[in-house]
Amino acid sequence: MLRAPDGRVVVTTDLLLEGRHFRCDWSSPYDIGRKAAAQNLADVAAMGARPTALVVGLGLPGELPVEWLDGLADGLRDECLPAGASVAGGDISRSESVVLGVTALGDLGGRPPVTRSGARPGDVVAFAGRLGHAAAGLALFLAGRDDLPYPDLAAAHRHPRPPYDCGPAAAGLGATAMADVSDGLVQDLGHIAAASGAGVVLDPGALPVPEPLPAAAAELGVDPLGWVLAGGDDHALVATFPADAVLPGEWRVIGEVVAGQGVQVSGYDRPEGGWDHFRE
Amino acid sequence: MLRAPDGRVVVTTDLLLEGRHFRCDWSSPYDIGRKAAAQNLADVAAMGARPTALVVGLGLPGELPVEWLDGLADGLRDECLPAGASVAGGDISRSESVVLGVTALGDLGGRPPVTRSGARPGDVVAFAGRLGHAAAGLALFLAGRDDLPYPDLAAAHRHPRPPYDCGPAAAGLGATAMADVSDGLVQDLGHIAAASGAGVVLDPGALPVPEPLPAAAAELGVDPLGWVLAGGDDHALVATFPADAVLPGEWRVIGEVVAGQGVQVSGYDRPEGGWDHFRE
Repeated sequence: MLRAPDGRVVVTTDLLLEGRHFRCDWSSPYDIGRKAAAQNLADVAAMGARPTALVVGLGLPGELPVEWLDGLADGLRDECLPAGASVAGGDISRSESVVLGVTALGDLGGRPPVTRSGARPGDVVAFAGRLGHAAAGLALFLAGRDDLPYPDLAAAHRHPRPPYDCGPAAAGLGATAMADVSDGLVQDLGHIAAASGAGVVLDPGALPVPEPLPAAAAELGVDPLGWVLAGGDDHALVATFPADAVLPGEWRVIGEVVAGQGVQVSGYDRPEGGWDHFRE
Repeated sequence: MLRAPDGRVVVTTDLLLEGRHFRCDWSSPYDIGRKAAAQNLADVAAMGARPTALVVGLGLPGELPVEWLDGLADGLRDECLPAGASVAGGDISRSESVVLGVTALGDLGGRPPVTRSGARPGDVVAFAGRLGHAAAGLALFLAGRDDLPYPDLAAAHRHPRPPYDCGPAAAGLGATAMADVSDGLVQDLGHIAAASGAGVVLDPGALPVPEPLPAAAAELGVDPLGWVLAGGDDHALVATFPADAVLPGEWRVIGEVVAGQGVQVSGYDRPEGGWDHFRE
């Protein structure tokens, strides 16, 4: 039994499958738990709600050592802490491969939920959290260059740090639409644009490309802006606000909502194959 | 976003795996959906809560026809109807085999949740719903005798009919402990006995063995009481009540809570191999 002080509850669920959403030979059980929890808790925060609880259905192969389950449980628990939530229960079955069914619940604190469909032309687009760090860490890993001295990027790939508190705060600031950046900034803003019947124009000059992203990109010979625009898995929050909203420092304005459709990046042609082209 | 008028919410989650919990060559997608929903909704009712919503995470093989998903969705929806709930959302992934992660939520209507640990010596044990019908239907199917004219048993095996309304009603009647019969009456009462630190004695003469159970059992040469005592999947509700509780007709008293431990059936020795011996 969970508290739902608001009298309403937001719920989100994801099924995470070994080999498709994670690989047990690439990720520790702890990191798999952190990521699985982060993905759902960030989705709750993106509705403007405070995450309260996770329930987890687990399918585990019989030969998996008990330490593996311990690691997973530790990861789930540790990711709940910064979100203010807890693991409330679960269910375990025998399975051929590892399966995680993660459901997160959240409390709206008396505010209406923030959806993806409320962006209006004239709104500003802003984000909180980090962009491109997990993608850079993954790119270094895939290139066999995780020996390079960028521990922040490797850590970002291993487990994201979603800005959970910024979700309910954005609702209080009047956010008109919000999502967490799981598939990439352009793609997730595209969902907001489509749901809102509007377009988005991003100002690439406003997009932060902090070190060590440029240094790591130089090592690999790629454009670090690609990671920022198309990299997923950092679970930043991206939201639209009325133009006169006063946004605290956690939020950085990177564009605006316009009449039209789709997401444009000023001065950039849409790359061949779409923005996914940038994704590793 | 879901209503949680009580200010609290009960949650239950299950992972259902093809080949382990269901077989796509034995069950239609509609029946798989009905059973998956019933299992979780009955669990919510057994806490004394009114089921409000399901959220479903689906893993589906790419070659599965879209009609399969339609059938599953219809089954989930149709089972929500008698429970007073609805399918509130979900998530779909590509998967090697069919995986269902089902989470059900419920509202307590201002009452404390009923747990498994509150049974006290002197309480009566009662059940609502049906016992043994799904097991009989499965036994006929496995014996290749589903040609016999017992459509109720075949239907009970295809989809249970849990007495959803009896769960919150039992809470209102003062139930001290409750569970749904998913693994078999003796086994599920055993969980209540263990959690409560007490024993249970069942009166086999009080256990209903209605037609067509005796007729079907005669065809197969088995004892129909085995289905009633050990058959799962009907999702009857079994609860303990203070001895002076006035129970309406939906509830039938079948035994009592005693000092001690475990579940005894008066006049029966515990069968070799335990009550599971009876299970098909």
